[in-house]
Amino acid sequence: MSMDLTFLGTGSAYPSPHRGASAVVLRTEGECWLFDCGEGTQTQLMKSQLKAGKINKIFISHLHGDHLFGLPGLLCTVSLNYSPTQPPNCVDIYGPVGLRHFLRVALELSGSQLVFPYAVHELEPTGDQCPPEGLLSPTVTQSSESLHPQERPGRTICLEGESDCYLLFEEKHFTVKAFRLFHRIPSFGFCVQEYDRPGRLNTHLLKELGLTPGPLYGQLKNGETITLENGQVVKPSEVLEPAIPGRKVCIFGDCSSLLGEGGLKACRGADILVHEATLADGFQERAVEHGHSTPSMAAAVARSCEVRRLVLYHFSQRYKPVSLQKDSEEDDVLELQRQAEDALKGTATEVSLAEDFLTLPIPIKRSN
Amino acid sequence: MSMDLTFLGTGSAYPSPHRGASAVVLRTEGECWLFDCGEGTQTQLMKSQLKAGKINKIFISHLHGDHLFGLPGLLCTVSLNYSPTQPPNCVDIYGPVGLRHFLRVALELSGSQLVFPYAVHELEPTGDQCPPEGLLSPTVTQSSESLHPQERPGRTICLEGESDCYLLFEEKHFTVKAFRLFHRIPSFGFCVQEYDRPGRLNTHLLKELGLTPGPLYGQLKNGETITLENGQVVKPSEVLEPAIPGRKVCIFGDCSSLLGEGGLKACRGADILVHEATLADGFQERAVEHGHSTPSMAAAVARSCEVRRLVLYHFSQRYKPVSLQKDSEEDDVLELQRQAEDALKGTATEVSLAEDFLTLPIPIKRSN
Ligand SMILES: [Zn+2]
Ligand SMILES: [Zn+2]
Ligand SMILES: [Zn+2]
Ligand SMILES: [Zn+2]
Repeated sequence: MSMDLTFLGTGSAYPSPHRGASAVVLRTEGECWLFDCGEGTQTQLMKSQLKAGKINKIFISHLHGDHLFGLPGLLCTVSLNYSPTQPPNCVDIYGPVGLRHFLRVALELSGSQLVFPYAVHELEPTGDQCPPEGLLSPTVTQSSESLHPQERPGRTICLEGESDCYLLFEEKHFTVKAFRLFHRIPSFGFCVQEYDRPGRLNTHLLKELGLTPGPLYGQLKNGETITLENGQVVKPSEVLEPAIPGRKVCIFGDCSSLLGEGGLKACRGADILVHEATLADGFQERAVEHGHSTPSMAAAVARSCEVRRLVLYHFSQRYKPVSLQKDSEEDDVLELQRQAEDALKGTATEVSLAEDFLTLPIPIKRSN
Repeated sequence: MSMDLTFLGTGSAYPSPHRGASAVVLRTEGECWLFDCGEGTQTQLMKSQLKAGKINKIFISHLHGDHLFGLPGLLCTVSLNYSPTQPPNCVDIYGPVGLRHFLRVALELSGSQLVFPYAVHELEPTGDQCPPEGLLSPTVTQSSESLHPQERPGRTICLEGESDCYLLFEEKHFTVKAFRLFHRIPSFGFCVQEYDRPGRLNTHLLKELGLTPGPLYGQLKNGETITLENGQVVKPSEVLEPAIPGRKVCIFGDCSSLLGEGGLKACRGADILVHEATLADGFQERAVEHGHSTPSMAAAVARSCEVRRLVLYHFSQRYKPVSLQKDSEEDDVLELQRQAEDALKGTATEVSLAEDFLTLPIPIKRSN
């Protein structure tokens, strides 16, 4: 199954002509998931090869405008562009408490009707995910008004004590969890874990045993032991190649640190870890003061989790994309990459810089 | 005093890479007023020659997303880019009832703090400005929550029966009014009227009378009659050139028609009338069904008001900007101009098409 990640916006604080506000799309066959939706995401989508009408799940890491303010407009435009023949499914939206009220007010006051239903599933943050002034008062988030006409009731998802994670859902191919981050307001990271899949049947071996393609193949693939006509017993492990480990993609919201063990556990061994790096190492104090990370801080997370690839994004708008950088540029985004690479010396982790419209394929892993 | 109008977005329904969502800036010396603020307006501002930090008044014609969803982000970014030495003034925001609640919720839930105060002055629509389903229920708009920390109390402005207009404010150089439009939800047009200014002193004549520049000049300019040392009486009308008539700029929100006489009266003789033309004349039925206008409908308003220049904007995204049109293009935006021009034959009204980043100077009028 093919799988890739496309960055629609890699800038911090606000969208600029050079870097859109945060938005990342994870595509697999039949699924198109959007992580964060800063202002202008719908326009970035139009500029990309992706189709807005395919998005069926949306994840909002935190409620800062550069991750949120594009959401009402995106939903309206997706709705306008839905082909009438395509049956509109429910769009599931996951994000911190407050998201449901924001969307309801924005859609209601703008008189927006959608051609598909949507549901907002809210993550209940813990009180230590931000300084006290970053917590919303319950009067702001507990909306008493009724559902928007296209809104379906959503769940409220609480932290699971044992895993220190939020279980968002389990579906056919993936489990998706969220974990806690520390930022100026409560922020979350998301972990998409593909299930391991059974290895291929060794057809060479099967032929030697006298089996031709048919129902017995399916039984073996499903893990059943079979008995041949000649009485020989064949176990799946004898004719199956090793299992194909599922891929893991982790996308962090804004943060100056992880909170608890949930994130480290969830992200262990990730194929791709997408982490913010708002400012260069030299500005670490300022970055942390604003709830943000530097390349070395991102690298430390990647090192702890032993990930294959660390992708940096959410750059301060002072860092121009490489293609627009002048030789004399003081703020060199490549320097951010070098800082992360230095901090990861001696590990196998590779470092990439995200740019708007970069697509990273996530290849199927070789068997372990 | 120089005065110009810059179009930041000229597309309808949603922002696209070719046409931003609705946003128009009126600039005069020291004033920078934004009319509508669709998603992406802040990015369009960055691409233009204008400075977001100069915007001191904002007018929202109606609450559809393509006129509104850029507002919270714009305020946040203006706030980020304010120079610390510039004293932050109150930003006054005018728009339909519901705007105050929308902004409060968006800023509050996103944890946005502004470095300047703002006030939302709400226009109370009448019940006949849209079909019944377009009216907001009072429970949605009457927010009981307290002001945002940077919010100052705003006025609620009601229709004045006699003028059939809403008086927004009168300041040093301008009176600004709003008038009612019919659309899918309550929509408004805005009329900016510059005051007439006294003509220049005819210095040639004054010298002949033996007057040298001094306090008497000022008295004459202020309309006072003076008596010279030789007993001669000089009336201002004898030495002043004719008054310079104030300019008038009218900007319409989405509409399929005016409602009442207010708009026609307010816009009479306008220098510039900016009117939507979402679809070509051939689609009039569909345009009206969606609360929109065609070029001929816009031209009819311009004809009734005897305006100098009609500027069309808010084009369906099917109409590409002229510079991007292919010869084979079925939907030719120039056809919209021709349709308005045809409908205005026999009048002195000129027609322009707005494009993103077009700036129209509004020259001082010659004396009548
Ligand atoms: Zn951010
Ligand atoms: Zn943030
Ligand atoms: Zn519109
Ligand atoms: Zn509209």
